[in-house]
Amino acid sequence: MASPSAPQSGVAAADAFPDGTRDYKPLRSGKYDLKKPHITEYPITWGNWYKHVNWLSTYFIIFVPLMGCIGAYFTPLTTKTAAFAVFYYFNSGLGITAGYHRLWAHTSYKATLPLKIYLAAMGAASMEGSARWWSRDHRAHHRYTDTEKDPYSVRKGLLYSHIGWMIMKQNPKRIGRTDISDLNDDPVVVWQHKNYIKSVLFMSLIFPTLVCGLGWGDWMAGFIYAGILRVFFVQQATFCVNSLAHWLGDQPFDDRNSPRDHVLTALVTLGEGYHNFHHEFPSDYRNAIEWWQYDPTKWFIWTCKKLGLAYDLKQFRQNEIEKGRIQQLQKKLDQKRATLDWGTPLEQLPVISWDDFVAESKNGKALVSIAGVIHDVTDFIKDHPGGKALISSAIGKDATAIFNGGVYLHSNAAHNLLSTMRVGVLRGGCEVEIWKRAQAENKDVSMLFD
Amino acid sequence: MASPSAPQSGVAAADAFPDGTRDYKPLRSGKYDLKKPHITEYPITWGNWYKHVNWLSTYFIIFVPLMGCIGAYFTPLTTKTAAFAVFYYFNSGLGITAGYHRLWAHTSYKATLPLKIYLAAMGAASMEGSARWWSRDHRAHHRYTDTEKDPYSVRKGLLYSHIGWMIMKQNPKRIGRTDISDLNDDPVVVWQHKNYIKSVLFMSLIFPTLVCGLGWGDWMAGFIYAGILRVFFVQQATFCVNSLAHWLGDQPFDDRNSPRDHVLTALVTLGEGYHNFHHEFPSDYRNAIEWWQYDPTKWFIWTCKKLGLAYDLKQFRQNEIEKGRIQQLQKKLDQKRATLDWGTPLEQLPVISWDDFVAESKNGKALVSIAGVIHDVTDFIKDHPGGKALISSAIGKDATAIFNGGVYLHSNAAHNLLSTMRVGVLRGGCEVEIWKRAQAENKDVSMLFD
Ligand code: HEM
Ligand code: HEM
Ligand SMILES: [Fe+2]
Ligand SMILES: [Fe+2]
Ligand SMILES: [Fe+2]
Ligand SMILES: [Fe+2]
Repeated sequence: MASPSAPQSGVAAADAFPDGTRDYKPLRSGKYDLKKPHITEYPITWGNWYKHVNWLSTYFIIFVPLMGCIGAYFTPLTTKTAAFAVFYYFNSGLGITAGYHRLWAHTSYKATLPLKIYLAAMGAASMEGSARWWSRDHRAHHRYTDTEKDPYSVRKGLLYSHIGWMIMKQNPKRIGRTDISDLNDDPVVVWQHKNYIKSVLFMSLIFPTLVCGLGWGDWMAGFIYAGILRVFFVQQATFCVNSLAHWLGDQPFDDRNSPRDHVLTALVTLGEGYHNFHHEFPSDYRNAIEWWQYDPTKWFIWTCKKLGLAYDLKQFRQNEIEKGRIQQLQKKLDQKRATLDWGTPLEQLPVISWDDFVAESKNGKALVSIAGVIHDVTDFIKDHPGGKALISSAIGKDATAIFNGGVYLHSNAAHNLLSTMRVGVLRGGCEVEIWKRAQAENKDVSMLFD
Repeated sequence: MASPSAPQSGVAAADAFPDGTRDYKPLRSGKYDLKKPHITEYPITWGNWYKHVNWLSTYFIIFVPLMGCIGAYFTPLTTKTAAFAVFYYFNSGLGITAGYHRLWAHTSYKATLPLKIYLAAMGAASMEGSARWWSRDHRAHHRYTDTEKDPYSVRKGLLYSHIGWMIMKQNPKRIGRTDISDLNDDPVVVWQHKNYIKSVLFMSLIFPTLVCGLGWGDWMAGFIYAGILRVFFVQQATFCVNSLAHWLGDQPFDDRNSPRDHVLTALVTLGEGYHNFHHEFPSDYRNAIEWWQYDPTKWFIWTCKKLGLAYDLKQFRQNEIEKGRIQQLQKKLDQKRATLDWGTPLEQLPVISWDDFVAESKNGKALVSIAGVIHDVTDFIKDHPGGKALISSAIGKDATAIFNGGVYLHSNAAHNLLSTMRVGVLRGGCEVEIWKRAQAENKDVSMLFD
């Protein structure tokens, strides 16, 4: 019961705002007065820290699991109960991922009534608030990712985004506003919201106890393991989407915000770990797009479709996905490119006349003219992969043609290296004609064209 | 003895050419007459095929190893001989990779006399021709990669580049010309070339037989295993550089020619498998640039340097290597980009007036103007991740500001998707002013800026 305040704010308070949304006041119980300063507006001190703590959430997220651990110490775990706890773990996890998240927060597919009821029940079994409250906050998280208005912004620290935001009281004025009119029109969502306390107690604790008790007489272990401890694991796992998925991994689609892709997060969260993709394409029913990536929530939705329980599965075109990937790669390439030495830009080089170039070449400087640019190859002659003789034969000459296939069609690497040796621009550009004239009188380089 | 003809063409025939090279007639024994048509100029027929075969090479590459196999059937292999054969395998392999290839063909480092003698001896032990012949062909291979003048062009088939070029006679006029004046100045190279038959017989067969015979009395196995079969394995392994390394793997630096990087080739060839890098940076003493890649030849040269046996190890600047990698990635990105749909180019779109835009929007077409471009979002409204209400509120309006942060700062993906919906360009560009005027009379959209 991560959000005990949600049930208290009713759907009744809605219908007041002109932007098409019928409810926008989240996380606010009837007893708050928006006019008075909220406790979060005061700094935390030794005197008031306990007022900052959301004790009800803390009780359900911290104390109950602790008691579960103590209980587990005295309660042996039978194979049947363990198997049921694991089975129920996956079902209640899917209630959050396939239900709260992909169906209600993102409407990434449509569900028939039986599937909706199952998902709402399983969501309640996870003790993470009502679908309506959860989706509202989650939409704000997407719309205002990483900002002040993001309810679980990772910018406030990993622990804050994991459970801090529930353990500490939140200023209801701070959280971003979102449209949940579609949820208010969904009878299953509204029913679950109105009957939240009943639903959560029954689905998360009573039902698993009953199954294990009536099924094989294991009441106590059913309560402790399939109830309390299973809830604890489902909660911690799904909280990882808010913490780990904004902290660990790659950013193949966009690196301006915090969401990240990582297989570990996916393994923990029934496939929600491809979170960089998900923030970029939130209404796609998939989080993992490759068949070999772990996304059981996607597989579940897909199976429901085959069974006729789900339909209208939304999917972004592969074209759009590839475009995002390419742009991000391009961005990384450009960043890398900027760190490298590409030679002095041509416009910063001195302009040198052909005669000065020839004269300087005779004065011991090994200058070579290629494509109208003069290069100083003095230090490179001894390293030239094509040998000293060939490169030396081009000193004081226009080597445009011999460098570009006349003698040897140099590699890309050679062109790159060449540009780092630029020292001047030839007045009048390529003086190949002058060089050719010189050739006529200078027989001993003619065989360079072979 | 892959090239039995090499020893017969002497250094004596050189000194005739004016391009700084003193020898350019390769693979040509005294008995060939360049004026007469060469056998390779006739097609292969049932009547003349045996004249096309280079029987001497075939004998050493095919028949001798076959006899080795038969001999091995009757000769038990002792542990000591096996250990020596493996040890000698690595040494003779290094003779080719560290000696023939990186020292003599590419002068990627300088070696002291003792190291040169060791490498020349080990090269002879591999029975792959003299260092001089090998390097000459190899330089032609680099200079004319994948062309007619490449002695072992993979364009003629994998088998051809592996052994075909040695088993079939080659037209000496075909092979590209290269400068080997530096090799003719190297007394170790010249000595080995002149005394090639002696060297190869002693180092590849007699020496290993003597070691095993005098060492532990295992004459026959020494001859068969450490001699014949070890030669066979070294030959096949190093031939892989010409075949496998031009056929299997990635091209991180340049994909215009055939060389490729692959760890399998590296494992087989003592580290020569990073061949795309090597063709791009041939005078680098390394073939693998990452510490975790397998390049024992590099480790050997580096160790020789530490021992004072090698010096002047050449290395391309990391800057140049990264530039090559980036350009190749850029090329792949550009290719990929060209296959995707980026929306109709602006210059191909009709110019539409503001009034026509507003009028058409009222006639059931969901048009939205963003940044001076008109987009048809009709089919997208139901899929909009931000809900139907918000996107619908922008129809027939200029949504430049609301799309770009006024209401929601859309992701890169949203911008990409938007451009695929272009249908027209607004006459006069962004008509935000007109829209703002309309705003004043049209209160019910004002809250879009919140
Ligand atoms: C002027 C600056 C020059 C630079 C920076 C340069 C750079 C290089 C580089 C990096 C390579 C090895 C990689 C490759 O491109 O395949 C190379 C190879 C070669 N260069 Fe140059 N070069 C220069 C001038 C010349 C000239 C003037 C000639 C001929 C007259 C020449 C002839 C060759 C040949 C034949 C090779 C092939 C060597 C081999 O791969 O075995 N180079 N050069
Ligand atoms: C005109 C064409 C539009 C396109 C193609 C488009 C596309 C998208 C896409 C792809 C996303 C999800 C990914 C992201 O950007 O975070 C998105 C989210 C959103 N859009 Fe739009 N949009 C359009 C118009 C609008 C307009 C006019 C508004 C507001 C008046 C709006 C409000 C939103 C909001 C609030 C979200 C956040 C939903 C969430 O992540 O939970 N969009 N839009
Ligand atoms: Fe997120
Ligand atoms: Fe989400
Ligand atoms: Fe090669
Ligand atoms: Fe090479």
